[in-house]
Amino acid sequence: MPVNLKPLSPGSIFPIKGISLGIAKAHIKKPNRKDLLLMTIEKGSRVSGVFTQNSFCAAPVLLCKKHLKSVSEIRALIINTGCANAGTGEEGILNAIETCDAVSQLLSIQSEQVLPFSTGVILEKLPIDKIKNGLSDTVKNLDPHHWIDAAEAIMTTDIAPKAASRKIKIQNKEVFISGISKGSGMIHPNMATMLSFVATDASITQTLLDKILKEVTEQSFNCITVDGDTSTNDSFILIATQQSGHHEINQVNEDYQTLKHAIQEVAIDLAQAIVRDGEGATKFITIQVESGADEAECRKVAFSIAHSPLIKTAFFASDPNLGRILAAIGYAGIEALDITKIQLFLGNVLVAENGGRAETYTESQGQEVMKHSEITMRILLNRGQAKTTIWTCDFSYDYVKINADYRT
Amino acid sequence: MPVNLKPLSPGSIFPIKGISLGIAKAHIKKPNRKDLLLMTIEKGSRVSGVFTQNSFCAAPVLLCKKHLKSVSEIRALIINTGCANAGTGEEGILNAIETCDAVSQLLSIQSEQVLPFSTGVILEKLPIDKIKNGLSDTVKNLDPHHWIDAAEAIMTTDIAPKAASRKIKIQNKEVFISGISKGSGMIHPNMATMLSFVATDASITQTLLDKILKEVTEQSFNCITVDGDTSTNDSFILIATQQSGHHEINQVNEDYQTLKHAIQEVAIDLAQAIVRDGEGATKFITIQVESGADEAECRKVAFSIAHSPLIKTAFFASDPNLGRILAAIGYAGIEALDITKIQLFLGNVLVAENGGRAETYTESQGQEVMKHSEITMRILLNRGQAKTTIWTCDFSYDYVKINADYRT
Repeated sequence: MPVNLKPLSPGSIFPIKGISLGIAKAHIKKPNRKDLLLMTIEKGSRVSGVFTQNSFCAAPVLLCKKHLKSVSEIRALIINTGCANAGTGEEGILNAIETCDAVSQLLSIQSEQVLPFSTGVILEKLPIDKIKNGLSDTVKNLDPHHWIDAAEAIMTTDIAPKAASRKIKIQNKEVFISGISKGSGMIHPNMATMLSFVATDASITQTLLDKILKEVTEQSFNCITVDGDTSTNDSFILIATQQSGHHEINQVNEDYQTLKHAIQEVAIDLAQAIVRDGEGATKFITIQVESGADEAECRKVAFSIAHSPLIKTAFFASDPNLGRILAAIGYAGIEALDITKIQLFLGNVLVAENGGRAETYTESQGQEVMKHSEITMRILLNRGQAKTTIWTCDFSYDYVKINADYRT
Repeated sequence: MPVNLKPLSPGSIFPIKGISLGIAKAHIKKPNRKDLLLMTIEKGSRVSGVFTQNSFCAAPVLLCKKHLKSVSEIRALIINTGCANAGTGEEGILNAIETCDAVSQLLSIQSEQVLPFSTGVILEKLPIDKIKNGLSDTVKNLDPHHWIDAAEAIMTTDIAPKAASRKIKIQNKEVFISGISKGSGMIHPNMATMLSFVATDASITQTLLDKILKEVTEQSFNCITVDGDTSTNDSFILIATQQSGHHEINQVNEDYQTLKHAIQEVAIDLAQAIVRDGEGATKFITIQVESGADEAECRKVAFSIAHSPLIKTAFFASDPNLGRILAAIGYAGIEALDITKIQLFLGNVLVAENGGRAETYTESQGQEVMKHSEITMRILLNRGQAKTTIWTCDFSYDYVKINADYRT
């Protein structure tokens, strides 16, 4: 079960003026489950996107990038689960185009104004006929309140739907931000995560929307890992419908910071929800690396720890086998690392310093921290001012089970 | 159980003139098991070593490097299992020195002529008294025929002892090579592997012995991974006792190649044995990456695949979920990779080409290959002449079990 992930209560996710969501059961991989989502975006909105850096990126990712460049207004997103449309060559591209064409006809917009997204098994052909058949149901179902249904419709091995929302004030006008995400395995986002869609009714220039997207990504989805596998389909889309009635934000001022901060909170909620629902997860682990020479080396150390199967299995067992953490710091590839300066804290317990076990450390202190479901570790490199925080989960029998059984 | 690892029959490992092996039960971590090994090396031998690049390298590794530099003749190796003496700071160094001192007194040699090795749990104090108590038993037990006992004495989570041997002819003289290794988890050697000790009675200069060691390491221990965790204690030692009676090899000639080839065969046997006995392994997987621009990029692709938990669990399940392999190729970080040129073969079956599933590929072909315990995959990048081969294993419930239980 997801680690301390609060169930979404109906009404907890604010509708966003200008956004409607329609869900259908298109029987793409399994019968009788929500697997197709249409998100419509009113005229005058602005859309920004970041995508996976995987060279084998999926056909819909290629098409999204093309459409974002070629038209001034994106008017709809179409998302299917059950098939990633990745590793599908020319035919995959044609199928993604055909999906956009079908959406454009139903909504009387251009095909290039549609962004397509897919998630599921790689190397399998997109069942285009099922998707086209399901589309008219998504149109009939369109409603601004369907955020939680939408979160359910994009799940794959996810156990729980993931959504987050904030309300802020800009120039005394209420501004809303809502978003959904999916992802549970193949999680090591590189520029974005599996799939996440966040919308706000705020009014902001395209340049600043792009800037927020980039900055927020670095502090949210690019700070998580479940298994170190970067997906072929990672996409994070940020939409601003410009309908909240305040003057357009056109410079990096207080309004910009207020909006960015709230969007970042939503994105961190969604990113952390992915880790909490990481395949087989029983622990939510925060890794803070501090006093590094630069942020890049802090991230290297943090991900070296977060990707170690030995550390992840020890956390699953609540076994403070903490020498494994030192080993992972040691092979992170940091130049001229002085190990005698490093301090390792588990919770508030000092575990290691001066190149070895701290004199004050006792096994029972470590065990006390390890038995909790939320654990923070801090590594002080003591060689600079930079720091970073990332989130990950443990590695359990169920991770193996889920991924050994995934396609069956 | 280890994957197709042949049991060692008594007498299958040749004794090496000038080498004796003594084993003791020193009760270091567990009572009543072989856990201490003394290897003596006769005067006139040459010794070469490579060690882990982990910054948190163990105290004995630091001492080995120092001793190899400071004396002309190494005369003994002392190896304990049950404690890695890593993450032990100043005290760890002092304990490693005390171990060498004790050996030197028993054998009437200098302390610097002893190389110490430790393997086991990190961040725990070396039980120096138990080791010193066990030493006299190792001396009494010294015998040139004790190779298999020696392989048993250095095991940690290993299920099977690992040893290999070859007999060759140089200048019409018989030359023997024998070696042992240990390792099962925390296996992603970087310049060497957990622990491996290979000896030959060949006669060769120090410079050429060093050259063989370096070249062989690149083709053997640096080509394996179990879990991507580089150990703090990796060490590979090559000894030439100069007793086989042929003229000293002092240039890169046919004799050099003959000797190097045989040592490489022993090292590959030992490296593959580590993978076959990888924690929880049920499959032995060979990954060949061909026609790359250079060897470095071939290795990047191969290890990207070999470290993916998603791919390793799919192999455990015998599930040809092969899109995961494309994803791992895609995130290997190869610049300007043209995915339409890549071909993926599983066994002899062409799975993917032109950026997607091969037209001839059927699921049942993939299933047929996946059900075997020895699987080879080939990735053709089709952009150059370089190639590499690495070996790994799958990822099973037992990996999690072993590593969740390791210290209990």
